[in-house]
Formats: sequence, C-alpha cells, structure tokens
Amino acid sequence: MSWWDERCLLGAPVPAAAGSKKDGKDAKKERAGLQQKAAVMTQPDPADPLRDCYGDAPLVQSRTPSGLVRTRIQDISTALEGQLVHVRGRLELVSGKGKACFLKIRQRTHTIQAVMFVNDSTVSKGMVKYAQQLTRESVVDISGPVSVPENPVEKCTQKQVEIKVTAIRCISRAEPLPFELADAGRSETELAANPNAVVVLQDLRLEQRFVDLRTPANQAIFRLQSAVCQLFREALLAEGFQEIHTPKLIAGASEGGAAVFHTDYMGRPGCLAQSPQLYKQMAICGDFDRVFEITPVFRAEKSFTHRHLCEFTGLDLEMAIDEHYNEVLDVLDRLFVYIFSGLRSRFGAELAAVNWQFPAEPLQWLPETLRLPWEEGMQLLQEAGFEPDPFGDLTTELERELGRLVKQKYHTDFYVLYRYPLAARPFYTMPDPEDARYSNSFDVFIRGEEIISGAQRVHDPALLTERARAHEIPLDSIQPYIDSFKYGAFPHGGFGVGLERVVMLFLGLDNIRKTSLFPRDPKRLTP
Amino acid sequence: MSWWDERCLLGAPVPAAAGSKKDGKDAKKERAGLQQKAAVMTQPDPADPLRDCYGDAPLVQSRTPSGLVRTRIQDISTALEGQLVHVRGRLELVSGKGKACFLKIRQRTHTIQAVMFVNDSTVSKGMVKYAQQLTRESVVDISGPVSVPENPVEKCTQKQVEIKVTAIRCISRAEPLPFELADAGRSETELAANPNAVVVLQDLRLEQRFVDLRTPANQAIFRLQSAVCQLFREALLAEGFQEIHTPKLIAGASEGGAAVFHTDYMGRPGCLAQSPQLYKQMAICGDFDRVFEITPVFRAEKSFTHRHLCEFTGLDLEMAIDEHYNEVLDVLDRLFVYIFSGLRSRFGAELAAVNWQFPAEPLQWLPETLRLPWEEGMQLLQEAGFEPDPFGDLTTELERELGRLVKQKYHTDFYVLYRYPLAARPFYTMPDPEDARYSNSFDVFIRGEEIISGAQRVHDPALLTERARAHEIPLDSIQPYIDSFKYGAFPHGGFGVGLERVVMLFLGLDNIRKTSLFPRDPKRLTP
Repeated sequence: MSWWDERCLLGAPVPAAAGSKKDGKDAKKERAGLQQKAAVMTQPDPADPLRDCYGDAPLVQSRTPSGLVRTRIQDISTALEGQLVHVRGRLELVSGKGKACFLKIRQRTHTIQAVMFVNDSTVSKGMVKYAQQLTRESVVDISGPVSVPENPVEKCTQKQVEIKVTAIRCISRAEPLPFELADAGRSETELAANPNAVVVLQDLRLEQRFVDLRTPANQAIFRLQSAVCQLFREALLAEGFQEIHTPKLIAGASEGGAAVFHTDYMGRPGCLAQSPQLYKQMAICGDFDRVFEITPVFRAEKSFTHRHLCEFTGLDLEMAIDEHYNEVLDVLDRLFVYIFSGLRSRFGAELAAVNWQFPAEPLQWLPETLRLPWEEGMQLLQEAGFEPDPFGDLTTELERELGRLVKQKYHTDFYVLYRYPLAARPFYTMPDPEDARYSNSFDVFIRGEEIISGAQRVHDPALLTERARAHEIPLDSIQPYIDSFKYGAFPHGGFGVGLERVVMLFLGLDNIRKTSLFPRDPKRLTP
Repeated sequence: MSWWDERCLLGAPVPAAAGSKKDGKDAKKERAGLQQKAAVMTQPDPADPLRDCYGDAPLVQSRTPSGLVRTRIQDISTALEGQLVHVRGRLELVSGKGKACFLKIRQRTHTIQAVMFVNDSTVSKGMVKYAQQLTRESVVDISGPVSVPENPVEKCTQKQVEIKVTAIRCISRAEPLPFELADAGRSETELAANPNAVVVLQDLRLEQRFVDLRTPANQAIFRLQSAVCQLFREALLAEGFQEIHTPKLIAGASEGGAAVFHTDYMGRPGCLAQSPQLYKQMAICGDFDRVFEITPVFRAEKSFTHRHLCEFTGLDLEMAIDEHYNEVLDVLDRLFVYIFSGLRSRFGAELAAVNWQFPAEPLQWLPETLRLPWEEGMQLLQEAGFEPDPFGDLTTELERELGRLVKQKYHTDFYVLYRYPLAARPFYTMPDPEDARYSNSFDVFIRGEEIISGAQRVHDPALLTERARAHEIPLDSIQPYIDSFKYGAFPHGGFGVGLERVVMLFLGLDNIRKTSLFPRDPKRLTP
C-alpha cells in the first residue's frame, strides 16, 4: 500500500508534492497557473477528517506500486455486490448538486455509474464538492463497494450495478474540451431529425483527433480496421503465404507517373514507394512462392475526394500461378468471404456501434464472388443508356452506375470485373493472350467503388522491357526489377487492397477520413 | 487439356507461337537474339515422334487452363509409386551425357531427382539433348511416373522417390547466373576449412538479391522473420492489444535530431517518421488502451555498422499503465518468451537450415527475464575494470562487455537493463520519481546488442513541454502531440523493437543485411 489510506479503502496520505518537487520550475508554474485560472478545488481542506480519501493524485511516475488490483468496468457484475472495487477511467459525465454527486466513468466503450452522498463516515461535503468540480474527460481513480441500484442505470452500459464511491482521486485533469463527445458521437438519424443539434465538423474532429477517437463509433471503426488485418493474415497464412517487408525508400517510381513523394537519400534522389509492387514480384523471383505485406503506401496526388488519401495502408499479395490468374481470383474469393464473414460473426458489437451513429445497409455478398467480364460490364452500361469507353478506364461515376446495375441483376455489393483494356493498366500487366487490346487484370468493387486492383504480371524480361518502353518508364530506374526475371521466373499474379477503403465501404461510410487514424490528404499533415 | 499431349501423358501440341505472336516485334527480336546467342535447342526436331513431349512452352499467359493438377515436391512419397505426377519447379542441377540425363528440381527448399534415359517409347534422343541444354535455375514443367530408386538420392531432400520424366518443357529460361547458388549457400564451416572455395561477397549478393534469396538459409531466415511478426501479434492480440496504422509522413521529426529524411509535402516541409512514437501515444490519448504497430521506420543515419539500417521494420507497442512501467516489462517478458519458444518449437526446420550455413550457439534465455538495474550494470562493468559514464549512455563496446558479464553471472543472452540516465533518453521519457538524474526507461539486449528501447512516457503536458524545451525540440512541430495530453491522459508506457535485429541476434548472424529482404544503408537504395 502506498498513498491510499485503508480508512478510505484506497490508499495512504499523498506524499507532499513528491512528484512536482523534481519537475522543474516551469512545469510547476504552468500547473499552478492552470489551477489558479480555473479556481477549482484540487486538494482537500486539511481539516476534513476524510482528507486522505480525495484530491488530485501526484503524477503517476512509477513509484513503489500500491499492490491495489484494479477492476475492468466490463467485469463488474451483480456477483460483486458489496465488494470493494478500484477503477481507473475517464469521467464522462459529472452531475449533482449539494450533497449528491453522480459520476459516469468510462473505459473505452464501457461505462458505469458511481455515486456519492454526503454521510458521517465515508463521504464528506468537501469530497462531494471536489468531485462536482472535476472536469469531463479527466482520468480518475475511484474506489468503493459495488451496489445494485433499484432501477437500472439507463445511461450506462453497466445497467445493473453502480459503485458507491468512498475514495476519488484525479489522475489527469482535462482542460475544457474542443467539442463535446456527446456531440461528436450523435447519430446521423438524430442530426437529421433535429436541425438545432450541434454538428462537429470533420476538420475540427481531425484537428483534435485524439479526442474524436473516443466516441463509440470511432472505437469500433478502429477495432474493425485491426480485425480486417487480422482476418487477412489468418486466411493467407492458412493458404501458405508468408509475410514480407519491402523497402519504402526506393530509387524510382514504382507505379510510374508523377504522383510520387521525393526525398534526398544520402545525396541521391529517392522516392517513396507508391506500392510494394516491384518488390513483392522480386520476392517471387527469390522463390518466396506466396507473399503478403501490410504496409503504408504513398501517393502524392492532389485528389480532394471522399476516397483518396496521400498515405494509406495497402494489403498486398503476390503468388506464383500455374497457368491462369483465375488462381489468384480463387484466393481472393476465399479471402474476402472469410474477412466479411469473420467481421460479421466475431465483431457484431463493433458493427452495431458504427451502424448506430452511421446507419447503412448491411453489405450483401455471395458465397462465391461474381466475376464479371469487362465486356459484359460494358454491355450492362450500354443497355442502361451510358456510353463507356470500351478500351479506356471506367470513370468513378460509371463504376458507381455499374455497381447499381450489378446489384440489381446479381444481388451483390461485392464483385470482380476482369479483362480490363490493356491501355488502362500499369506496364507490368500481362496482355490478354487472345487480344492484346485487353489484359489479364481485374478490379474489385464494394458498393460500386474500387477497393482492389490486380492482375497477372509480365514475367518475361523482354516483354516487360517492351511494355515499360510503351509506357515511357525510364528503364534505368527499374533495371534491377527487370533483371530479376532473367534468372528463371515463375508466372505470377497478385493484387493490392486499400485497407481504409475496405473498412469505409464495408461499413457504408461516406468518407475515407473516417477510417484512417490520422488521415493524410493534400491539405493535412498534422496531427 | 490444352497443349500437353496424352501420348506424353502431359498435354497437347504447342499452339504455333501463339504467345509470341502478339508480344510485339521488340520482344520477339530480343528473345530470338538471346536464343541465337546461346545457340541452344529450344524446340524439338519436327521429325521426332516425341516432338510434343518437350520444348520451350509458350509464355504462360492465362490461356484456357489445361486442367492438369500439379503436385508439390514435398507431397511426393513412395505411396505414389507408379503414379503420374506433374511438377513445376526450378532446375537446380542438370547432368548426364549421351543417353542419360539427371535433373534436380527444386521448390523453395524441397528438391527431387528426375531422370531420363533414351528408350523407344517415352524418351527420345532429342528429348534428352533438349534437357541437357537447359540452364540452371530455369523454371520447368516435368511429368512422369513416381519411381522408387534402388539407392536413396542423397543430394535431394526427397531421398526415397524420383520421377521418370516422360515430358519436359521450359517455362522460363534462366540466363547465366551472377553466381552459383551452391556457392551462395555454402556453410561457413566449409568455407573456413577450404580456403579455395568460392566466396560470394555481400555486395554481389545484395545486387542480385532475387537470386541470393533462393538459398536454403535465406528461405529460412525470411520464414523466421515472418514468424516473429506472427508470434508478436498472436501474443499481443491475446493480451487485448489492437493493431493500428499511424502516418509515416509527418510535420516534424518524431525523435528529434538530424537523422530525418525530408520530403516536399504539397508545398510544405514533411518528414518521414523515425518511429511511430508520438502517434501511438496519441492513440492512447484516444482511449485505445493497448496498441501495437508493425511498420517501416526511417533513419537518415550515416552509420556503416553491422547493425544499422536506414530503413527497418519496427515492432512497436504502447499501453496504459496503472502505476508502474513494470507493467510494460511484464508484457515484454511474456511476449518475448512466447516468441523465442514459438520459434524453437514451431520453426525447427528453419532454425536448422540457418544454423547449417551460419553456425551459432543457440540463444539462452530465462523463463522469467532478468531485469538488471542500471546501477548494478555499472557496478558489473566497474568490477571488470571498465569505466562507464554512470550518467551517459553505454557505448556499443560496453553493451557487448556487459552482455558477456551478465551471461557469466546470470546465464542468459536476453535481459532488460532499466533506470537509464535521463540525459541518455528522448524528451518524452518520464523522469525517475526519486532522482531526476535517472529515468523510468529500459533497453533490452540479445547477445550484448540492443534490440528494444522503452519507457514510461510523460503524460503531463506541462512537464512534457519543459522536457521538450530542455532537448531544444521546436515546440511548434510537436504542439498537436503535446496538446493530446491536455484532455485527460492515461499514464502509459511502451517500447519499440527492431525486427531485423531480433532475427539477426536470435540466430547469431553477423550482419543485419542478412535479415532485411532488400536492405537500405547509406550506400544502398537498389534493388
């Protein structure tokens, strides 16, 4: 036991400013200044007999551990009634006047009510006053016995239990918040119904992302992002894939074009990889057979759309094939059915939390993914009155229209469009064997938006050189890549997935910035 | 069935140059030139009755699949005796004269012998001649019945079986190799014993990394690298950690100092993250509680040592703590014991393959990791006659010496040294509560070399500002980071691990370039 006193059930006297003593003058002054400005109570009246049961804790700085075991809010149940628990959490709400105080304590998405009523033995007036003046989102330690309230606590996730506070200390005091979490977490349904409700705009959220991330929907979104990576790896490791790590600092543009970030690499020009493309193929030439990588990808594109970022997370794979890139599509099919099913079966609470704030139709997919030939896609569009370029790429608008037509006809939000025109694909794409205006390539769509691009690659160095020339790629910058196919190359193919897009579109969200932890777009480099 | 003829048990006639027809003139010329130069046989004599059973295959380009099922070398056993198998692999070796030909076929680290003897029905003279002229490391398709040789095939991993070739086609022809794989894979024991053996120097290996990676030791090293990541995630997901992806493009240097790569970010200065440090802490402020990230890390250091890279893979974690950074060390302890044990129990074959080429003492570790206080480390060194700076950092040499002394005394190659001098640590390190000359920080060593650096972090914005000023860090570049602690911050700590170092030192290798797929050092930006 260190500073918690047994009488308060939680600790001993606070060592006199032991923490701040060595913090230096500046820090002490700033902290003192802050406290004076706010004019709030941070320490008990020395005359209060319960003075050791509340007050701001000294800086947690790895002193001798108290030995106290803290309990997670989600583990507190009626089975613990009457037992003393110690909980650290955020003070989401504080209310009450005079002799009563109600606290809503939060850990991630779990909340519990803690209550204080002035009495002769465990709760003093000073203690209640101290609690009432705590600021929202402050981190606090509370102790007290678990109690079962007469009526369920509707506003908390723990409805059947509450804590009768006998000790409370502030661990980290929050300044006035840039916006209210209640506003940031409001459902779009409520916002639509109530034009007077406060809307927290996206720019403000992103400026203060470390606060914005605390809403239940954001907590869930990034649990789901983590889950997609986990499911991706589970499925691929089971199929004999191996994880690799390829360099992001490279000599030439990996995908050609101008959208490259440059850097000075020890006196010579370097680029940031726009994809692990060339390197995952070289790994195949190094006999790795089946590889994947989860990696940042850099695109210096001035695209201010809802679905472009300057840096995103690529889920990439590459594999040797025997004869046909259908073998890649077979892996893709099993992989995404596994990911989607896994999200739905293992992360139901997270899906519900996102859907509560951002309602959307659940994703529809087929047990075996639809593979639509390019020409059939063109025909569907033409029949619907559109005029796609049969040997160009699809515009974003036509992708969306095609998504609608496919959903109508095939009842799926997730499908593969294959045999793209060669002119629309990167230089390393294998031409179609029957008609060189086409290529052995595909894109994959969710809700009419592209999330995956893939293909069989050219593994013949002479043909690859020719294709690079046709694309006016400077050969010297990719010579080692071309050379890698000279010493025997397995035919191969693969694809790259945009993680943030998958999460956005699976959930039916409207902006990719919602699924990037700290998004990077042409305007945003901080935080 | 496509181009394999049933008579050869493997296919139909080759469509007349169907592949090259549409490849364009340049490619055809280059390929023809190559073949003329080498003056090797690439297609059968049209008069050979077995002409459909051998010859270079057309470019594998996703034509109508043949329906043939290929067998993995590792799956061929005596149980398949007499059965026809189809195998694609590399031609590691080819030998034989006149009417006989012996082929060693490889898939990754698995090899099998394939044999041809001229006879009246299944193997023609032309067929044997064609095979004899194939180049090493070419990719080939072979078919034939499995046979059980009288004597075990000592030079292959499959010793009890071989394949009696009845059809052979070259899929991708290798040019003369930059070095022999047999030389690249030679054991250090043999090299030491035989001063005349060819040594493949590191620079040549790295120039031709896509060939170098094919040796058994390299195949194993990168399986083990993949395994370390897998075990790292398994252990942390089980402890309630969540994976995050933080930006690599940032506004200021994450670790201070000069070793930063710069880029132009849409007209303003940008940096490449030297670590995910500031962002993983901001995730903790966003209530993520426990996070990890596996991510590239960039250091523009002109260090030409055996253990520095300009880009490496960081395994990072950060977690809220209740009272003491011992809680972080508890996680670290369980995590690394899990990784080391997992490598040994689940990846024995890979460990053996590396150890065969690069013999080293197996790593010694304790069931509960030794935690050595800084002052005891200093004392050990002083008693051994060294003069460490008690308030500076350890030199590489002293780290090594201390490793030796610790091994002598505690019988472990893996230990934690904690309570480093504050002056030796980054600005965000929490000072020791008892003596501000020290800090709540630690390094972790394998075989006397640092692989991990960690600490409790400062979560108080005033103290953090003061520490940043003391380190002369420009405050404007890290203001959002400092601000993230203003709205209630959980005390927290964490650490970062260098993946390539862990693999290098676990295996007892002598150079970090051996454990990086495509290493980046001050001189090397390609391939």
